[in-house]
Amino acid sequence: MSLDLAAIRTAHDRIRPYIVRTPVLTNEWLDAACGGRLFFKCENLQHVGAFKARGATNAIFSLSDTAAARGVATHSSGNHAAAVARAARLRGIPAHIVMPSNSNPAKIRNVERYGGRITLCEPTNAAREAACARLIAETGAALIHPFNDFRVMAGQGTAALELLEDHPDLDLILCPVGGGGLLCGTAVAAKTLHPNIRIIATEPAGADDAARSFQAGHILPAARVDTIADGLRTTIGENNFPLIQRYVDEVVTVSESGIIAAMRRLWEELKIIVEPSAAVPLAAILELKVSVTGRRTGIILSGGNVDLDALPFRM
Amino acid sequence: MSLDLAAIRTAHDRIRPYIVRTPVLTNEWLDAACGGRLFFKCENLQHVGAFKARGATNAIFSLSDTAAARGVATHSSGNHAAAVARAARLRGIPAHIVMPSNSNPAKIRNVERYGGRITLCEPTNAAREAACARLIAETGAALIHPFNDFRVMAGQGTAALELLEDHPDLDLILCPVGGGGLLCGTAVAAKTLHPNIRIIATEPAGADDAARSFQAGHILPAARVDTIADGLRTTIGENNFPLIQRYVDEVVTVSESGIIAAMRRLWEELKIIVEPSAAVPLAAILELKVSVTGRRTGIILSGGNVDLDALPFRM
Repeated sequence: MSLDLAAIRTAHDRIRPYIVRTPVLTNEWLDAACGGRLFFKCENLQHVGAFKARGATNAIFSLSDTAAARGVATHSSGNHAAAVARAARLRGIPAHIVMPSNSNPAKIRNVERYGGRITLCEPTNAAREAACARLIAETGAALIHPFNDFRVMAGQGTAALELLEDHPDLDLILCPVGGGGLLCGTAVAAKTLHPNIRIIATEPAGADDAARSFQAGHILPAARVDTIADGLRTTIGENNFPLIQRYVDEVVTVSESGIIAAMRRLWEELKIIVEPSAAVPLAAILELKVSVTGRRTGIILSGGNVDLDALPFRM
Repeated sequence: MSLDLAAIRTAHDRIRPYIVRTPVLTNEWLDAACGGRLFFKCENLQHVGAFKARGATNAIFSLSDTAAARGVATHSSGNHAAAVARAARLRGIPAHIVMPSNSNPAKIRNVERYGGRITLCEPTNAAREAACARLIAETGAALIHPFNDFRVMAGQGTAALELLEDHPDLDLILCPVGGGGLLCGTAVAAKTLHPNIRIIATEPAGADDAARSFQAGHILPAARVDTIADGLRTTIGENNFPLIQRYVDEVVTVSESGIIAAMRRLWEELKIIVEPSAAVPLAAILELKVSVTGRRTGIILSGGNVDLDALPFRM
């Protein structure tokens, strides 16, 4: 099994009743600042406040009735967790969620109110996976991995499908990369529909595993993981990396101050709330890591779950 | 001259190239909280961050070439000012803007960058009107009043026109009221298209001139003007009041803490930035001043211009 446009189209038909067709916003001041046209696909306005609703819903509604009856389990720093909890509730099955103990409180609350059963663990990949494996052994729940799962990637790719339905003439698409679920879905959808579109992955320099891996030709961990972009702290998945090598043109990294500045700019100009991870693509433009002059650029704004009592604007 | 549906339709055709057709958002949690369905018309996502772009653009593009050549002038606490500056720039004419000296700094910057020529004045209606009259005497500019002008009202009514195109089956519409421009446009559009829709005006108890006037049957000033909702501090206009009497079913008032709580709720749930004035309708629902149980309710979110360095959330 792998990922192709047909799987993304099937996912779109499957999840359509359960997701928002999010608007694409433009802004005259951001266009003027970068000398091109920017088209923001607002997945912060998606259910659960993030694109993650797409992939989790596709994966959970793909399960057979027998498998679904045993419930689902996952580990996630937050948005995927809420997405799994929501989709499980829509399907009427239990969701077991492992979350790192340093998760953003807003993201924990978001899981709780969808009825997810939360287990907190140490904030390491190893601890997350161990806790999740234990839950699955106990319950027989199906693992819904946040990114290393082709059903999840297919669901995430539906955002790019919609973006390109609304704006088929984009020259490039910028996408944040954490584990690679959104990036793979976006890249496969866009490159298959329009082979000339450039796909640029953007990530924090403080979580630069995708950039290092892309350059090395095999998966490498980040030099260090230290970023405000809490959605992008994970290492790219084994199933994601080959697709990234094949479909992504470039991986660029941005600074922490660039992320915060871009986040504030998006709040001020677009009048929408985006989380730090979602600001990474605009940071890449504002830090001149990507040239968009004279081009039509799609940007996936990945999510909007922030703690309003802990804003980074005065750092 | 007065205001009717035909004028609103003409305005819509005139301004369409210059405005955003703003999205209508819904939210499962806010629906659950109020027991009905809420449809938020997001004028915070409009150019200049407020519905005001509609009315100012209609008024300014209605001017004859001769009149337009002498420029335009207005007084406004901010959003209308930016809207006039933007529309004047689109038409290629000067805009003279009188703003009260206590205007929100974000709103002043918003006028400046559209090239508006700002004159600051004392924060009273009398001082605003005097400064504006002086400017007009000096320049021959055409007054674009923020609300007491049928061309402006017609433009503001185009938001409700779009909302009802997208969702024709609303049972009621909630709208904030300051001077009455948005309210008159909304009420005339909605009541003419669907006579059974209830139109409910919402305003801060700390600027309750519309509620007092509606009850008394003639225009009365607010008992006192003390509200965080800076867009709603003005008194309703002479041309607005008769339309409010004829087309509006009810005027309700809300508390300051209710406005702040509703504003935060909108930020958290819808992932959009709204200014305090825009939160007044939801405050009316959450304070149980309006029953929306089992109903389909349209809400005009009027604007999103706030100073991110001075958020009221920790008050």
